[in-house]
Amino acid sequence: MDDSRYQSLNRRQLLTAAAAGTAAMVAGPAMALPRSSVPGWDEQVDVLVAGSGAAGTCAAIEARRAGASVRLLESLAVPGGSSSLSGGVVYAGGGTSLQRALKVEDSPEAMFNYLLRTGSAPAPREKIQLYCEQSPEHFDWLVAQGVRYSEKMTTAKGLPLGDESLYYSGSELAWPAREHAAPAPRGHVPGVPGMNGGRSMMQVLLGQLRKLGVEPQTGVEVDRLIVEADGRVAGAVVTQDGQRKYLRARRGLVLACGGFIHNTAMLEQYAPQLARCSVPWGGAGDLGQGINMGIGVGAAAVRMHEGFAIAPIYPPEEAIAGILVNAAGQRFVAEDAYHAVIGHSIAYQQQGRAYLITDQSSSYSHPQDNFPLVAQSSSIGGIAGQLKLPAGALQNSVAYYNRYAGKGLDPLFNKARGYVRPLQGPPYKAWDISVDRAFFPAHTFGGLATSIDGAVINSFGDPIPGLFAAGRNTAGIPTAPYLASGLSVGDATFFGRRAGIAAARAA
Amino acid sequence: MDDSRYQSLNRRQLLTAAAAGTAAMVAGPAMALPRSSVPGWDEQVDVLVAGSGAAGTCAAIEARRAGASVRLLESLAVPGGSSSLSGGVVYAGGGTSLQRALKVEDSPEAMFNYLLRTGSAPAPREKIQLYCEQSPEHFDWLVAQGVRYSEKMTTAKGLPLGDESLYYSGSELAWPAREHAAPAPRGHVPGVPGMNGGRSMMQVLLGQLRKLGVEPQTGVEVDRLIVEADGRVAGAVVTQDGQRKYLRARRGLVLACGGFIHNTAMLEQYAPQLARCSVPWGGAGDLGQGINMGIGVGAAAVRMHEGFAIAPIYPPEEAIAGILVNAAGQRFVAEDAYHAVIGHSIAYQQQGRAYLITDQSSSYSHPQDNFPLVAQSSSIGGIAGQLKLPAGALQNSVAYYNRYAGKGLDPLFNKARGYVRPLQGPPYKAWDISVDRAFFPAHTFGGLATSIDGAVINSFGDPIPGLFAAGRNTAGIPTAPYLASGLSVGDATFFGRRAGIAAARAA
Repeated sequence: MDDSRYQSLNRRQLLTAAAAGTAAMVAGPAMALPRSSVPGWDEQVDVLVAGSGAAGTCAAIEARRAGASVRLLESLAVPGGSSSLSGGVVYAGGGTSLQRALKVEDSPEAMFNYLLRTGSAPAPREKIQLYCEQSPEHFDWLVAQGVRYSEKMTTAKGLPLGDESLYYSGSELAWPAREHAAPAPRGHVPGVPGMNGGRSMMQVLLGQLRKLGVEPQTGVEVDRLIVEADGRVAGAVVTQDGQRKYLRARRGLVLACGGFIHNTAMLEQYAPQLARCSVPWGGAGDLGQGINMGIGVGAAAVRMHEGFAIAPIYPPEEAIAGILVNAAGQRFVAEDAYHAVIGHSIAYQQQGRAYLITDQSSSYSHPQDNFPLVAQSSSIGGIAGQLKLPAGALQNSVAYYNRYAGKGLDPLFNKARGYVRPLQGPPYKAWDISVDRAFFPAHTFGGLATSIDGAVINSFGDPIPGLFAAGRNTAGIPTAPYLASGLSVGDATFFGRRAGIAAARAA
Repeated sequence: MDDSRYQSLNRRQLLTAAAAGTAAMVAGPAMALPRSSVPGWDEQVDVLVAGSGAAGTCAAIEARRAGASVRLLESLAVPGGSSSLSGGVVYAGGGTSLQRALKVEDSPEAMFNYLLRTGSAPAPREKIQLYCEQSPEHFDWLVAQGVRYSEKMTTAKGLPLGDESLYYSGSELAWPAREHAAPAPRGHVPGVPGMNGGRSMMQVLLGQLRKLGVEPQTGVEVDRLIVEADGRVAGAVVTQDGQRKYLRARRGLVLACGGFIHNTAMLEQYAPQLARCSVPWGGAGDLGQGINMGIGVGAAAVRMHEGFAIAPIYPPEEAIAGILVNAAGQRFVAEDAYHAVIGHSIAYQQQGRAYLITDQSSSYSHPQDNFPLVAQSSSIGGIAGQLKLPAGALQNSVAYYNRYAGKGLDPLFNKARGYVRPLQGPPYKAWDISVDRAFFPAHTFGGLATSIDGAVINSFGDPIPGLFAAGRNTAGIPTAPYLASGLSVGDATFFGRRAGIAAARAA
């Protein structure tokens, strides 16, 4: 990638910058406030929740129902977090009521095998297992809160923009996933037209919370955790209307402040591949504050380099009949994989660079802004020349692809037969699918280590008393490559609920 | 990879394991001991150093010379750490006395450009810059301690097993590195025959330390850090001869306990790609204890998934004229790259799987144990069939490679001309270079965030008072891909010295 950070320095710059670096050592404040320094509690509740996205809201609902007094704090002016900006998809299966109503066959085992065997290592196996087993029940809980789903499904790829509520939201039908587990549609999305699923879901969940007597307090920044001498988290220092306040969490504090896609320094430090992606995808509150507060009291943070990086080559699906190649002109992934699987490969394994090569029939049929059109020619050689690919490389890749595609085969990546046909009708076109040139949304998955009950785990494998976390503030079910839409909101709602219950019951 | 972790579960296993998981929550001890709980100090020194490898020993030497009283603690029975098991290479350049004596041209800029532009993002730029600028001076320091170098160099690839002291220890001559920076040999290795460079160097450094009146104390486990109420690190709880002791560090404590390649749980949690590699490469003390103690007091740990993963396809060099292919039968890297660059690509970008394909002239000329011979045939198609590669893929890769190799060219990866010739003399052979089947040493690079003076940095970017770290206990100059032998020991000695000085001068 063309990146000024990698440019050469001349000698003068070299010497100047090093001298400046030496002076940068200043002693900073402690990361957490000792309980002994708290002048007095401004408020005391049983459970304090930081962050009002799906994780925090579900935690607050369940903590309240478990009998705890609850405060839900939100730094922004409007509650809902990144969840309310999302598609609102929850990845659910194993025979949910909606799957059964639509005569879709599924089992917890098939869902588990899809997530565990298709995913990266190490999968958070314990969490995945529990999530799969309790998925039908969790979906019923969402319905019981009032989230509305239609009894309609679609087999088209991509988030339904009609009112269908069930679709294949991942790579279930693509190779090698389809050999690892029996495919089933598991993307459950509120039955509202357009991209309003997340907003719709959060309105329902926040409404439930209000019915339980808990009004989210917006515009409240959680600055630091307060710790007892023995390491127990006792509360938080917050800023509200310019005033510092000390809030006590008698039973537990739940960190649900989201990821860190909008914190550039953290992104560079922990997840450089995501920092290169063109579109930080998440609410404005995704600044990593909750993760840093957790680390500050000794929490382990894991999978910090991981996230989703999405190359939305579909819809429309016609593009899938084209081929994706890397900077060496080689194919590297099945073009019909979930677009986050494609994006992951580009961002993490292909140094951020890729092109989609189309012919007359696979070209996007109308202009679109996602990917710059960077070459156009009557021959593949012409495309290769314009892209300055290694001599003969693209021609060789296309010749090999075409030889088998003519028989409906894709030996390299087993793209589904319906998308396999030779590239043979000019004009040929190349679309730039590089992370920094295409529309390439990215979001972080790294976060605090937690137990299946949301207890935050320290570097020695032990829970930190009084501290819980959920959602993208934690390293949950979503790993890189991201396997399906709905795993992040699904994880946030499911483990958010568990964290709220555990906090309410903590001693 | 064939890994039982990814096998399907049946329903009974699924339910049983989840139930067990729920019971796993037990409150653990605090991660650090509050100063208020210390019954009394058994010993008090200015600077306490944990770990006696290159980082800890250099820190102790410099702290002592800066006027501090010093204790150096080692958990194992013998001092020297992983450094003493290493080749003892220090990556140095910019015109060292040895380079000048051997009429080698080099500059800090060329060295900087090699490390910054060839490496991963984000490079630890400030550290690299200082390291390059002060490299000649640091090399002189090593010589002044008594480390002996011969005025001999070699242009052969791989650690010299004769008594040569200078060689190309990285990818300087390979593409694209040779276009990023003027190549120079920068691997400085003690002039002793065989793999004894590390042992030789550590004997010299430990000897210096003893001359300064500091005898390493072996068999002492550092269990926990001791922290003041304001977060300052005040000392450590250690176990010596079965006795618990409380040691005070008046000025600073330096964590130099190495990486975590031998801690399986940490490796699975943080660096799964390294966990798959067949040979954990490091001293028995590389258990991550220092990293975990740092995290326990709020330190940020960065690049935890990174490390070196080495595919030692050379020496002998004849194998470089073969081609490396992935599971799709495609080439993916220049075969003349540094073997850690090759290994990184296999471990991190090719899902751990690769084969080296050789012909009569590129085949290893004598049996060797590093890589299983997994196919042998009179034709490339025969090899492809035995390896069960996708239909036609390897044949296509070889045909394309041969077409250009006949002209001395390698359009894909610009392998140096001397290694480029068509594969055309049977018997063809395939050697398994997969991370779990080949001899594939791995070591961790992730660790605590530190300033250029070795101050440990917390999650809010501030130094933790009283705490310093160096070597593989920190995230230093070595990043993945590892760019050259000698960067790790070089980083450990250079920044170890700085950490020792900073600790001795701390308030």
